[in-house]
Parts: sequence; C-alpha cells; structure tokens
Amino acid sequence: MGEILYGRQPLREALRAGRRQVYRLFLAEGVRRRGIVAQVLALAEQAGVPVQVVQRAEIERLSGGVHHQGLAAEVSDYPYLDLHDLLDRLQTAAEPPLFLLLDHVQDPQNLGSMLRTAEAGGVQGVVLPRRRAAGVTPAAVRASAGAAEHIAVAQVTNLARAMATLKEAGVWLVGLEALPQAVLYSQADLSGPLGLVVGSEGQGLARLVRDSCDFLIRLPLRGRVGSLNAAVAGAIALYEALRQREAL
Amino acid sequence: MGEILYGRQPLREALRAGRRQVYRLFLAEGVRRRGIVAQVLALAEQAGVPVQVVQRAEIERLSGGVHHQGLAAEVSDYPYLDLHDLLDRLQTAAEPPLFLLLDHVQDPQNLGSMLRTAEAGGVQGVVLPRRRAAGVTPAAVRASAGAAEHIAVAQVTNLARAMATLKEAGVWLVGLEALPQAVLYSQADLSGPLGLVVGSEGQGLARLVRDSCDFLIRLPLRGRVGSLNAAVAGAIALYEALRQREAL
Repeated sequence: MGEILYGRQPLREALRAGRRQVYRLFLAEGVRRRGIVAQVLALAEQAGVPVQVVQRAEIERLSGGVHHQGLAAEVSDYPYLDLHDLLDRLQTAAEPPLFLLLDHVQDPQNLGSMLRTAEAGGVQGVVLPRRRAAGVTPAAVRASAGAAEHIAVAQVTNLARAMATLKEAGVWLVGLEALPQAVLYSQADLSGPLGLVVGSEGQGLARLVRDSCDFLIRLPLRGRVGSLNAAVAGAIALYEALRQREAL
Repeated sequence: MGEILYGRQPLREALRAGRRQVYRLFLAEGVRRRGIVAQVLALAEQAGVPVQVVQRAEIERLSGGVHHQGLAAEVSDYPYLDLHDLLDRLQTAAEPPLFLLLDHVQDPQNLGSMLRTAEAGGVQGVVLPRRRAAGVTPAAVRASAGAAEHIAVAQVTNLARAMATLKEAGVWLVGLEALPQAVLYSQADLSGPLGLVVGSEGQGLARLVRDSCDFLIRLPLRGRVGSLNAAVAGAIALYEALRQREAL
C-alpha cells in the first residue's frame, strides 16, 4: 500500500527517476517555494501529482521524524529488482560490471551512504538480503540523498545462493574484511567483472558468505583504533575498483 | 571545566590514549561488566578513576542524549594542539607527512567520520577552523568510534593563514572539489608532503581556501545524483594518497 517518503532530495530524485508512483505530495505551511522545493513542485506538476499544503506537525506525524524538511509524499513501494533483472544488465553493459553485495547491513544510515556511493560510482546493481538487514526504507533513501531512487537494488532470500548465481555468470566475488589472510586491496586485480561483498559493521561477513568469496581484500589500517566505518571502507574499495577500470 | 564524554568506545579510547584527565566514570545500573565495559572499568581502575553507579536516566541527562550505551565520564577538555605542534611532527616523521584540513565541516557526524578515517589511515594531523565549524565535541568523538582521542587535531583561527604556514614548511595543499578544472584524483601526484583540504557538505570550499590550494582534485562521478557525502569523498581521496605512498 505504499509508504511515506520525506525530505527534499529524496522527493526530487523519486520524481526524476520516475520508478515509483507518487500519489500525493505534502508541503508544510510556510516553506518557501524555491531551490529544490521549486524543482520538486515543478516535477510534481509535470507528473500530475496533487500537492496538499499541511501543517508542519502533520508532515512530522506522517514521516515519523524531524528530517522531513517540510516535504513528504505518499508513494508506491520501493521498486526492488530481482537478481535476474540485474544479470540481464550484464549483457548490455559496455564495461565489466561492478556489483555491490551487502551482508546484513543493519543501519539505514550506512545502507543509505553505500547506496549513494554506489550510485555516484556507477555501480550496476546492489544486492541485499531480504531478512536481518536494513531495507531501502524512507530513512535509507534520505541517507542516500535520494540516490537510492536511481540505483538498481535486488533483494534476495539467500545471499550465498545469489553469490553462486553471480559466479556462474562470470562475476568474481571479493569480500572486504580486515583479516590477515586478505590481500591488500590495492594489490588485488579488481578490474574484471566484480561483486564487492561488504559486511555489517562490527560483525563483518557471515561465515558462509565469506567462504563463498573468490578472495578477500583488506584496507591498510595504521591507527590505534584499527577500524573504518563499514560504509567508508566499502566506498574506498569501490573507488579502487573504479580506478583500476579507468586506468585500463 | 571539562565536559561529559559518553559511549563505550569513546571512553575506552580516552582512557587508552591518556591525553585527557578522566575525573569520574558513571556506569548505568544493570549494565553488564563484560566486553568493552569490562575493558573500560579495568582501564579506569588502573588510572585511579572513581566509578559511580547511577540510574540510566542520570546518564541520559548528563550526556544530553540516548547514545551513551550506559557509560559516561566527566573529563577535561579535548586536547587540541596548535599548528606549530603539528609542524614539529614533520621533523620526526619517517615518510612524507599527510594532513587533513577541514573547511567548516558543520556536522559532528561527518567530522567524527573523517577523524576516524584519518586515524585509521595514519594521518599525522587534522586542522580545523575554530569558528563556524564543528569542534571535537563528545558527539564527534562518538561518531569517530573514539579515534578522535588518538589523532592530533589543531584548531586554528584562520584556515587560509594556516595553509600559508604549511606551504612554507613544504607541504602541498590539495583541495577536493567537484569542479571541471580539478584534476582526476587518481592522476594527481599525492605521494609527497600533502595537506588534503575537504570542504563542508553542500557548500564545498570557501573561495579564499580554494585559491590557497596548489591544485584541486576531483573524484569521478557517474551517477544521476552526482555527489558523494563529504566524509566519504574525503576518505576516498585520503586512501588514494596512502595507496600512492605505499606503492613507492
């Protein structure tokens, strides 16, 4: 039955991407109709979306929080793909495909951050397990600055099984994990068809997922705390794969 | 007169680093004394810090929020260095120094994230303007997972003047900015003595700061949203500088 998306960038990108139905837009009283708000309103008008001016408190109630920036909308569910849709894209891509697989990332902020980086980096698709993981909720869309509305995300029942399917399609699976047996990321060949597997903060990769990787990579850590945020580590590894591609 | 630090990792790292006085530790009733909590209590005992068991609500009141994980402490102020302390470290470093300069980063989450990445990457020092920028508050320490307690941070009155001082000391200043005239980051030589200058989210670098850079670098952006989170972009550039150093 849809959900409530909120925030300026999420709504602009949802309307730009046109992947989901936007049923109704709510604008808080007193919000100035300029900048991104003006863009959202113009896009809504083009798409024939009705706009309703409501009290600020009403938007807060609808969005369940305070980060709405005076804008919310009733929209259809997030348009997940399935793995076969992602694989179909393999056939048409001009360069070796790059996928991001997230093993039970729980924090919507981290998920949103990774979706934003993946979209900016031109990743072909993101694979998420359906259970025990954050989904692409409105909070995650907001944390992605709206990028989640453009990137292809597949939800799968079993991540290890999805990895096997990707392998059969010729994709190398590389797990990011701070283990001594992992290869230093900059010394690994990340230029071919690649699925980068990133684990949840704190726990890393599940055993079965780790064992399904073709190899593991690690980032150099020189500090005393000795860890990076999962979304930051994933971003560094993803951009190294891009760098190697562009250097070809 | 000090401040209230909170959270498990922040307190463990504050005690490990030993850079500030820890006057008193507050432990919420019912918190199990194992894992990181046990480590914090052992470190507190070693350092002769009195421990007081209080109600959860009291810790919430002291820390002004909910992210305390049952632990808080009264500590002395954050131990900022001045720029000359940072420069003294130049003399003793075995490899070309790497500094991170933040131009008016406002969000404590982003600041904390960058301090964590800088610490993990072995950055010699971070330079922050004193005004119109987030300081290393307890919220930033928490967002850094405690890494802020180890890394050297200098607060300066005027960032452009600090940049001039670093230049005189032989440090190259490289601004990270998504402008067409910027060099692709992977094609820039980042292997020498370097100060990476990162701007605030949304606004980028201030004019005077940008003009004080020796050159600008940019990350490849391929998506439709076309931007990265400032802390993520800074992390990717920092690790590219490290990669180039390690490849020497």
